[in-house]
Amino acid sequence: MIKIGIVGGTGYTGVELLRILAEHPEAEVVCITSRSEVGMPVAEMYTSLRGHFDLTFSEPDVDVLAGCDLVFFATPHGVAMRMVPELMKTGVRVVDLSADFRLKDLDTWAKWYGMPHESVKWAEQAVYGLPEVARDAIRDARLVANPGCYPTAVQLGFLPLLEEGLVDASRLIADAKSGASGGGRQGKIGMLHGEVGESFKAYGASGHRHLPEIREGLQFVSGAQVGLTFVPHLVPMIRGIEATLYAELNDVKDFDRLQALFEDRYCDEPFVDVMPFGSHPETRSVRGVNYCRMALHRQEDSNIVIVSSVIDNLVKGAAGQAVQNMNIMFGLDERMGMSAPALMP
Amino acid sequence: MIKIGIVGGTGYTGVELLRILAEHPEAEVVCITSRSEVGMPVAEMYTSLRGHFDLTFSEPDVDVLAGCDLVFFATPHGVAMRMVPELMKTGVRVVDLSADFRLKDLDTWAKWYGMPHESVKWAEQAVYGLPEVARDAIRDARLVANPGCYPTAVQLGFLPLLEEGLVDASRLIADAKSGASGGGRQGKIGMLHGEVGESFKAYGASGHRHLPEIREGLQFVSGAQVGLTFVPHLVPMIRGIEATLYAELNDVKDFDRLQALFEDRYCDEPFVDVMPFGSHPETRSVRGVNYCRMALHRQEDSNIVIVSSVIDNLVKGAAGQAVQNMNIMFGLDERMGMSAPALMP
Amino acid sequence: MIKIGIVGGTGYTGVELLRILAEHPEAEVVCITSRSEVGMPVAEMYTSLRGHFDLTFSEPDVDVLAGCDLVFFATPHGVAMRMVPELMKTGVRVVDLSADFRLKDLDTWAKWYGMPHESVKWAEQAVYGLPEVARDAIRDARLVANPGCYPTAVQLGFLPLLEEGLVDASRLIADAKSGASGGGRQGKIGMLHGEVGESFKAYGASGHRHLPEIREGLQFVSGAQVGLTFVPHLVPMIRGIEATLYAELNDVKDFDRLQALFEDRYCDEPFVDVMPFGSHPETRSVRGVNYCRMALHRQEDSNIVIVSSVIDNLVKGAAGQAVQNMNIMFGLDERMGMSAPALMP
Amino acid sequence: MIKIGIVGGTGYTGVELLRILAEHPEAEVVCITSRSEVGMPVAEMYTSLRGHFDLTFSEPDVDVLAGCDLVFFATPHGVAMRMVPELMKTGVRVVDLSADFRLKDLDTWAKWYGMPHESVKWAEQAVYGLPEVARDAIRDARLVANPGCYPTAVQLGFLPLLEEGLVDASRLIADAKSGASGGGRQGKIGMLHGEVGESFKAYGASGHRHLPEIREGLQFVSGAQVGLTFVPHLVPMIRGIEATLYAELNDVKDFDRLQALFEDRYCDEPFVDVMPFGSHPETRSVRGVNYCRMALHRQEDSNIVIVSSVIDNLVKGAAGQAVQNMNIMFGLDERMGMSAPALMP
Repeated sequence: MIKIGIVGGTGYTGVELLRILAEHPEAEVVCITSRSEVGMPVAEMYTSLRGHFDLTFSEPDVDVLAGCDLVFFATPHGVAMRMVPELMKTGVRVVDLSADFRLKDLDTWAKWYGMPHESVKWAEQAVYGLPEVARDAIRDARLVANPGCYPTAVQLGFLPLLEEGLVDASRLIADAKSGASGGGRQGKIGMLHGEVGESFKAYGASGHRHLPEIREGLQFVSGAQVGLTFVPHLVPMIRGIEATLYAELNDVKDFDRLQALFEDRYCDEPFVDVMPFGSHPETRSVRGVNYCRMALHRQEDSNIVIVSSVIDNLVKGAAGQAVQNMNIMFGLDERMGMSAPALMP
Repeated sequence: MIKIGIVGGTGYTGVELLRILAEHPEAEVVCITSRSEVGMPVAEMYTSLRGHFDLTFSEPDVDVLAGCDLVFFATPHGVAMRMVPELMKTGVRVVDLSADFRLKDLDTWAKWYGMPHESVKWAEQAVYGLPEVARDAIRDARLVANPGCYPTAVQLGFLPLLEEGLVDASRLIADAKSGASGGGRQGKIGMLHGEVGESFKAYGASGHRHLPEIREGLQFVSGAQVGLTFVPHLVPMIRGIEATLYAELNDVKDFDRLQALFEDRYCDEPFVDVMPFGSHPETRSVRGVNYCRMALHRQEDSNIVIVSSVIDNLVKGAAGQAVQNMNIMFGLDERMGMSAPALMP
Repeated sequence: MIKIGIVGGTGYTGVELLRILAEHPEAEVVCITSRSEVGMPVAEMYTSLRGHFDLTFSEPDVDVLAGCDLVFFATPHGVAMRMVPELMKTGVRVVDLSADFRLKDLDTWAKWYGMPHESVKWAEQAVYGLPEVARDAIRDARLVANPGCYPTAVQLGFLPLLEEGLVDASRLIADAKSGASGGGRQGKIGMLHGEVGESFKAYGASGHRHLPEIREGLQFVSGAQVGLTFVPHLVPMIRGIEATLYAELNDVKDFDRLQALFEDRYCDEPFVDVMPFGSHPETRSVRGVNYCRMALHRQEDSNIVIVSSVIDNLVKGAAGQAVQNMNIMFGLDERMGMSAPALMP
Repeated sequence: MIKIGIVGGTGYTGVELLRILAEHPEAEVVCITSRSEVGMPVAEMYTSLRGHFDLTFSEPDVDVLAGCDLVFFATPHGVAMRMVPELMKTGVRVVDLSADFRLKDLDTWAKWYGMPHESVKWAEQAVYGLPEVARDAIRDARLVANPGCYPTAVQLGFLPLLEEGLVDASRLIADAKSGASGGGRQGKIGMLHGEVGESFKAYGASGHRHLPEIREGLQFVSGAQVGLTFVPHLVPMIRGIEATLYAELNDVKDFDRLQALFEDRYCDEPFVDVMPFGSHPETRSVRGVNYCRMALHRQEDSNIVIVSSVIDNLVKGAAGQAVQNMNIMFGLDERMGMSAPALMP
């Protein structure tokens, strides 16, 4: 059994890790920390876990965490980059679900996260954990930076187009929509049911932290400069991201081979499902599961490729992808612990 | 492997059976029928099942169903009572998720379901499949009548009180609330999002089909006449039932032992969770799982016992309880295929 | 024009007062206060008010408020009772939407609100502002205690039964359900969309502040001791309260005259709508308006009267009733400013 | 008083017309038709209208409608084009809320609506009723084609850019999102709460009827060919549309004057609100009201103008715009009957 520690377990990604790991046959959570909830039984805060875990939140303690095989960080940004350097000395491996190690350009990181980066060395060595791009590097990584939720949905949708150089990389548009759990589990007025319910809005339309992350990822696969416009929106639901992607095809004749291209690209991927051309993926079709479902569209007389890509922001966009990375790191079947279908309706 | 047939698979209980059985290690769905969707792949109608089932909806055919070990009926009322007599000749066992075999009093059945009952013999022999009451009879049953959603939540909450005769059985009140999936998957205007969303109402307040079912069940365990007032309500959510139950304690001193009574009554039940006195079970804590969670309350200077009981109407209130019954009928661990925690948030 | 001041205008009842008063032909809001948002334009916090108000939040200041004809308090409990005594010296009239002056029994008040009451004199003199009971007293009142949301829906539903002494007043049950705006506009984790959405639960089932308020009100009209069990629930919607009320008829023959009794009792009430016997009022039918809609039910062979009563918690349960009280206090048509139909769907 | 007839009053736009007209001081609804609900009182179907209307649904009858000053059609497409020619002989004026007269290119109409157009003459003469573009023509029109919901939100957002020729008109993208009431009030499975709730998806991504309508409108104001990609999405809420628009600025220096351009363009428009640069309009800020609110955004180093535009699909996207058109046609203040603020929260 892989011994698991979770740092920062009170948020939505923390409880989602527990939900997934509860059924994992090869992993055992031995330690979960929260500075604010020390002594609180996990199943008292999350009653859905009654009967599944006897754990109690504890103070984060490097000595204890060092006894684990893998530590997940489900903390706000700024925490992992301070604890990781010391943890790394102990031999434990880390999957960081926060944003701390996602960017290679640390000036950009500092600008968007409002603080200087404190672990240049590990930012360099961290592997950006998108399995569909970096499976081999993940396998051997000591530190995996688990991708953000929007970046996962957007990159997977653009990936085949950019790898093949079929579209104008300077004119990409990603119009993305997320349920409210993406905003975390903190007492913010803007995330109250009375504020989020029965309403829809864009946010961060002049610039959002996930834009540089997506751009770095796309530039990595395309090998070229990427011009991306990214606008996130808040949907009055709890889980789910849909990203509608727009890209201009260099040669309109390529439309005929796009569907085959996407299917080939992802045919061996356990968690990417390319639906028939013209389908409309629904976020509920991935509720609670680690799939990214996508479909291609073309409008009459148009050279614009439209991709609609959906994930569960807490699963493929966070905890599920983290467990997928863990499975890769420990040589397990990538699907292990995540084979159940989505909860629909 | 138990070979499973599902009759009437296009509704919400049908797809929920598939979702649960997808992960069941000892059962295999070999046949799923739908008169209206013959030839349609299951995974095309329910995209959440892509990659999980290769099944296609077929015409219901007794000869084919006879080749199964167990047939689930997930049909509107009136269907099972016509097919079951012939099926029973073949040796197959049946769990009927519809209302056809839930009542022993067939005059009452005819009155509430608007048609005469057509299978008196099997209505008599059917076992009412509430495992917490009738586990032994279920084990040997050829035909199990799977309880309704409200009846499950309400009976489990009242059960210990009535078994012990602690409350005035002539004055029971059950105020119950259900998500919209309880209304089924048919094109009814009243169940549109535009009608159900952002609103709350009682319905069937002058009388609802589940009232006689609950009363029969409670009279069975109490051995006395039961006077029950039951009012269901429609909640703008998809899954979940909460029932708030009110009963007058015969002797107010019994309040002191109620919590222990409930805990003892259910300590060996794999799917009933008695929370600490004064807790407030949330429907989301059982979203997608087969638990019934409940808690007791008392208000100052009052002799009224308050029980709040929650289930997922599609799981413990339908498909999950059906699989629990299947597990009992085939001598399996009752939890088999249903050990994952709830999807929360 | 009546000059209006609003103390504590940043919460949901504050903005609702503004929404209603924006259209009131005889009232003008001249001052709105908020300690935390001094200098913030009202229409910047609530963009729905762009083009309707040029007001800016200011520090609460008795001298400024004294220049108003009427001051509404839309503050947390404990604020009004400290400011009112001084304000009363100035001749201004007050409608307090908080709980500070709702109870006559100040020991009970202190117990439920966790502090001693600081204005015994004005608690005595305050008029409990349920127009359907106390219209004449409201007309002349200096200080009106605007009823709570649950108490309005529950009292109006029980009123005719208790006034006529038709039911067993020692056995009343009120099972009430509210949208999330009743929880206010503060950054509480429990009120996040991620916590409230797609879930339903009881809360305060062992005792809630509104219970003593309802009981005092019902005892006032019935002239007898009242035994009430009151359980509130949280509905995943923003606005609306439904209360399902259960009372035992002393003489079952009275069922025949109940509908006429309710219709007569409320025929002159501008904001109470008794629907046909057996109807199911929906909260959306009163969304944004000051109506209380209700209907009566009887189940077969039962002596239990069931009343389903709905209001918009922010309107008839708060700001609308406050404006109704203002209209009464200033001799205006009670409906003034509140004649538009509900927003449905 | 303007005598109003409504043809097809049972849908969401029909009841919304009634809601708005209930408060209109110069209009009186004298006749409302529905083939399926003849004899049904309006207030029985829509309980929100109890106390506001005594009307009963009647058979559509040209003779009766001819006695009106204005007839609104709130019918499915195909109905108005058959009745209008005869109605026009009588002198009555018509605002058609359906799609029948929105397109000038009738081949395109026939293709998207699946039937040949049956009133070429009136399709030519109809005025496309977007007041911000065609106020003068509306004033004198006999027949106004009320714009669709998406077309209103999208056109108003692009308008100033295209009128001034500032952007590449061949590369417009409109990513739009609508609440479920846009799908109408018919018993379609896809619009059930159980299907729409807690999920998000694109639909019509390969082509939607509103695309040619928007394109015609934009070509009219720009005088050039327009290349538009339009993808609608379904949001789990009842009311509201948000459209995020992307356009490439010909000269990036024009960014500096865009905000002033928009503010000038709309400063005299009673129902368009240009928010400060960088704002995020919320659909709830226009819930129940006739406003279109919009804001501009620019992302770092980008030449893409982003416009976020919100309306209530049933008001500015349907019934409210129809009443605005009526007000213009009858020389009334355009705001008449629609001055109340939005219902928020």
